[in-house]
Amino acid sequence: MNDLTLRPFLWRSTRLFPEKRLVSRTHDGTHAYEYETFGERVRSIVAALRDLGLGPGDRVGTFGWNHHRHLETYFAAPLSGAQLHTINVQLGDDDIVYIVEDAADEILFVDPGDPLETIIRLWDDLSVDQLVVMGETVPDAASELDGGVTTLEALVAEHEPVDALPPLEGSQPAGMCYTSGTTGRPKGVEYTQAMLYAHSMMVMTPAAIGIRETDVVMPVVPMFHVNSWEFPYAATMAGATQVYPGPSPTPADLVSLIDEESVTLTAGVPTVWIDVLSHLDEADEYENPLSSLERIVVGGSAAPADMMRRYEDEYDVAVEHAWGMTETMSIGSVSRPKSWMDDWSRKDRYRKRRKQGLPSPGLEMKLVAETGETQPWDGESVGELWVRGPTVVNEYHQRPDANAEEFEDGWLKTGDVAVIDEDGYVEIVDRTKDVIKSGGEWISSIELENALMAHPDVIEAAVVAVSHERWQERPLACVVLDEGTETDREELYTFLEREGEFPEWWLPDEVRVVEAIPKTATGKFDKLSLRERFDDPRLRFAPGESDAKPE
Amino acid sequence: MNDLTLRPFLWRSTRLFPEKRLVSRTHDGTHAYEYETFGERVRSIVAALRDLGLGPGDRVGTFGWNHHRHLETYFAAPLSGAQLHTINVQLGDDDIVYIVEDAADEILFVDPGDPLETIIRLWDDLSVDQLVVMGETVPDAASELDGGVTTLEALVAEHEPVDALPPLEGSQPAGMCYTSGTTGRPKGVEYTQAMLYAHSMMVMTPAAIGIRETDVVMPVVPMFHVNSWEFPYAATMAGATQVYPGPSPTPADLVSLIDEESVTLTAGVPTVWIDVLSHLDEADEYENPLSSLERIVVGGSAAPADMMRRYEDEYDVAVEHAWGMTETMSIGSVSRPKSWMDDWSRKDRYRKRRKQGLPSPGLEMKLVAETGETQPWDGESVGELWVRGPTVVNEYHQRPDANAEEFEDGWLKTGDVAVIDEDGYVEIVDRTKDVIKSGGEWISSIELENALMAHPDVIEAAVVAVSHERWQERPLACVVLDEGTETDREELYTFLEREGEFPEWWLPDEVRVVEAIPKTATGKFDKLSLRERFDDPRLRFAPGESDAKPE
Repeated sequence: MNDLTLRPFLWRSTRLFPEKRLVSRTHDGTHAYEYETFGERVRSIVAALRDLGLGPGDRVGTFGWNHHRHLETYFAAPLSGAQLHTINVQLGDDDIVYIVEDAADEILFVDPGDPLETIIRLWDDLSVDQLVVMGETVPDAASELDGGVTTLEALVAEHEPVDALPPLEGSQPAGMCYTSGTTGRPKGVEYTQAMLYAHSMMVMTPAAIGIRETDVVMPVVPMFHVNSWEFPYAATMAGATQVYPGPSPTPADLVSLIDEESVTLTAGVPTVWIDVLSHLDEADEYENPLSSLERIVVGGSAAPADMMRRYEDEYDVAVEHAWGMTETMSIGSVSRPKSWMDDWSRKDRYRKRRKQGLPSPGLEMKLVAETGETQPWDGESVGELWVRGPTVVNEYHQRPDANAEEFEDGWLKTGDVAVIDEDGYVEIVDRTKDVIKSGGEWISSIELENALMAHPDVIEAAVVAVSHERWQERPLACVVLDEGTETDREELYTFLEREGEFPEWWLPDEVRVVEAIPKTATGKFDKLSLRERFDDPRLRFAPGESDAKPE
Repeated sequence: MNDLTLRPFLWRSTRLFPEKRLVSRTHDGTHAYEYETFGERVRSIVAALRDLGLGPGDRVGTFGWNHHRHLETYFAAPLSGAQLHTINVQLGDDDIVYIVEDAADEILFVDPGDPLETIIRLWDDLSVDQLVVMGETVPDAASELDGGVTTLEALVAEHEPVDALPPLEGSQPAGMCYTSGTTGRPKGVEYTQAMLYAHSMMVMTPAAIGIRETDVVMPVVPMFHVNSWEFPYAATMAGATQVYPGPSPTPADLVSLIDEESVTLTAGVPTVWIDVLSHLDEADEYENPLSSLERIVVGGSAAPADMMRRYEDEYDVAVEHAWGMTETMSIGSVSRPKSWMDDWSRKDRYRKRRKQGLPSPGLEMKLVAETGETQPWDGESVGELWVRGPTVVNEYHQRPDANAEEFEDGWLKTGDVAVIDEDGYVEIVDRTKDVIKSGGEWISSIELENALMAHPDVIEAAVVAVSHERWQERPLACVVLDEGTETDREELYTFLEREGEFPEWWLPDEVRVVEAIPKTATGKFDKLSLRERFDDPRLRFAPGESDAKPE
C-alpha cells in the first residue's frame, strides 16, 4: 500500500471537480474561485515554502480566520512536507508567545487587521523569522519588522506551481493544534499525515458527519479550532462547494452567506446558532433565508434543546449534536437517533439527540470509575470517558508530565465525566476538574447548568463547587439574567426544584445573579475564577444547612 | 495514533448496534441473529484459532458462499492476528490446489455441499492439516480425512469468547485474494489491517458507495471475490442490517430476500441483475417485490444501458456502475452524475453513468500511452489506466516476475485500456491483452461488444483479434443469439454499421454465431480460447479485403 497522506485530497478535488467553487467572505465583499485555481495556488505555495527552505521537520504557523488563503495553507504546508500549526487568534499575548515558541514555528501566515497587529506587537518576543501576510499588501507597520515579510499573493505570483509534490510518509507530522485547559500551559497536539487522512475520511462517512459532492459546506467553527473540525479537508476530498465566512462574521453575515451561496451544511458552537436565531427573529424577511440549509453540526458545548427544536420547526433544519476534543481531531461522536427509533416520540428522540452521541467509526470508548473499574452502559453509572483509535493522539508535544497523566495503554483519558446509556449514547455530565463531590457522591454541574438555562430569563448559568465543612463540596450556581427581567434567585431555585427532576441533595445551596460568566480564551466558562471568587471562608455553609448527601 | 485495524469494526457494531440483525439464506431456510451474538461467536472463533496455534504469519483459508459463518471468519481470522484467505469455490481443481499451496494455508473453513466435496477430493494434494466445516456436522466422507476435522459450531461451542483481542498492527497482513488472468498462474494479492480499514472507510463514504446504519445491505457478489467488494466490513462498521444470500442463490431467492428483509442496497455482477429482471418479467406478482430497494451497485463487467433504464423506470431502483480490481481491493471508481449535471438530459446523464466513473477518495489515476507519455483527459486519448493510493497493493505474493511488470513507482498498471473524459469519468475500452491493433491503431473490443449486445436478440458477444497480413490484426465478433430468433450475421452487421457510430475500419470483418462464449473460472470471457479457435491461417483475410486503417 501507499501511505495515507493528503496528496489524494488535492488530486481528487482539483482533477475531478476543477469547476466547483470556493467562496470566501472578505473585507471587500465575496471572493470566489474554482478548485482548479485553488490547486494551482497551493502548488505555488508549496514551491514557495520549498524555496524558503521549509520542509519535513519544520512548522508553519497560521494565525487567521476562515477564508480561501487559510485553506491554501491547510494544504500547502503539509503537502510541502512541513507541519501546519494553526494558532488561535483569540488567545492572550502570553499564550500566543508561549505557543509559537513551544512549537518553534519557522514562519507565520497571518491575517491582516487585528491578527497582524497582535503579531507585530509580539514580534520581538518571537523567534519566528518569516512573516507572510494572508493578503495583497504588507502594511507599513509590518514592513519594518526584522526578518522576511511578504504577502501570500506575492508568494503565489513569484512561484510556478510545482509539477510533482515531494514524497510524503503517513507517519510524518502534518498538523498541530494547541489545547488549553483552564489550568497550566496549553499543550501541543500533533497530527500525522495518516491521521488527517483517516479522520477526514471518517468525517465523510454518514456515520460521522457525511459530506457529499452535492453539499455546499460552510465551516463557521474557526480554522484555528482543530482544523475547523476537519470539514475543510473532508469537503475538499468530497469535491463539495465550500463557503468560508471570513473574519469575525456577524449573524447577519452568516445568514446572507447561507442564502446567497445556498449552503446545505454548516458547523459551529451553539452560541453562534443562538445568535443567528435572534437575528432572524428581529429580521423582517418575507422569504426564509435558510431554505437551502439542511443541517447544522453543533459542538464545543451542549446545544440547548429549545434551539434545536426551533431550527427544526421554524426552518426545517436538523441540528446535529457532536462531541470531540483537540486530542480526538475534533469529531469523535455525533448524536442521531438510530433507525429503529423512528417511531419513538419526538421527546424521546430529543433525549437521545441532546446527548453527545454515538462514537464515530474507528473509535472505541469506555467509562472508567475512580477505582479503575470499567463502568457499565446503563445511563446511570458515571466515569471518566476514555477514548482510543487511529484518530486519537497518544502524546502531547514535549509534555512528559501530561503524557503520563492523560494517556494509558493506548487510551486517552478525556477528562470528561460521562454516562453512556444502554443504546451507546455518550452523555458528558462534567469535566473531571469541574466535578462537585458532595459527601463522596458526584453532582453534575453540566446537568444543573442545562436545567437553569432552560428558564426563559436565564442567558448563562455556571455551577461550581464551593468548600463545605461537612460535605467537602457543595454546588453554587451563578446565573446571568435577561436585562429587565423580574426573575430572581428565589424563583430560579423553585424552578430548578420543580423542573430539574434532580435528587434534592443535588440542588445548589446558593443561586447567585452575576453580570457575566468569566470565560477562557477558547470561550469556555472559566470555572476556576468563579470558584476563587465564591469559595471564600465567609461564604462557607454551616454543617447541617442542607441535607447534602444521600443516606 | 493507534494503528488502523479491524478491531474498532467489531467494537462499534457489537457495542452500538447489538440488536441489529444479520440474516443468511441457508439450505434450511432463513437464519438470523443479532450483532451481539455475532460478536460473541467471533470472539469464540478467535479463541479457537489461538488454541489451534494460529496467529500472526498464518493464513486461514475460506472456501464458501455468502452467509453469517463466512462473515464470522472475515473477522475472527484477522482479529486473531492471522490472515484471511478467501478462495474462489468456482475455480478448477488445478487452480485450487495451486492457490492453497501457494498461500500455504494452515487451515480451511469450507462450506458443506459442493465446496466440501471438492476439498475432500483434493485433500491428498493439499498440505493443509485442519479442516473446519462451516456448518453443524461433519459428513462421513470428511471425517475420514487425515488431520483435524471439525465444524464451526463445535469450535464456537467449545470456546469461551476471548475478553481481549490480541494486539494488532496496521502493517500486518490481514486479507488475501487471488486474481486470475486469462494466462499464467493466479497471483496472490495481500491486504494489511490498515488497508482493510482504509478501504472499508472509503466504501462507507458517499463519494464511493455510501453505507448508512439505516441501510439493509445484501452483498450478492461472492465473499470469495475481493471481500465481496468490502461491503461486509463497511456494513458492519456502519451498523447496517446485513442479508447474505447463501449458496448459489437463484433470481427468485434474491427477489424474495429483498422483499422479505426490505433490502435497500445490494451489489453484484450485471448478469445477476439481468437474470433478476427476467425472473420479474415472468413472475405474476401484484405488488412490487423491490419496493424497499434503492440502489444496486454493479461491477465486474459493463452494465447494459437497457438494464439500468429498466430498473430505474419500472422499479425506481438506481443502478450504480462501479469498477475495481483485486489489486484495488475492489471499488476504485463509481459512476454517478455530478451535482451540476442535474439539468442534463437523461441521455447525457446515462452516457456518464454507463462509464466506470469517478476515482474513489484516496485514489489517483492516470492514462499512460505505450510511449510512456501521460495522456490527456479528453474522452478520446487512449492509454493504460494506472492507479495508486493507500488502498492499492504494490506487489503480488511471491511473484517477482509480475511485480516487475505490473508495478512502477507506486503505481499499479491495471492492464485496462481506458479513456478519461473532461469531467474525470474513466471508461474502460479494453484489456491490454484483448486489444485489437489494426494498422497500428487501437480498436476497442469492449465497445464493439456493448454495441452488439444492444441488439435485442443478442445474448452475449465477444470480439477478438485475428491475424491479418496487411493490418496485423482485425476484429472478429462471436455472438450468442436468442433461441428461435431469425436474426442472422448479416442483420447484425447492418445493425452495428447503423447503430454503432464507429469509424468504418472498426467494424468486425466477420460476425460468427456461436453456441456459447467460453468463460474463465471467474466468469470472464475466455478470449484466448476464442482467438485460438478462430485465428487460423485458413481464416485470414486477404490484403485489401477491408479498408481497415484510417489514412
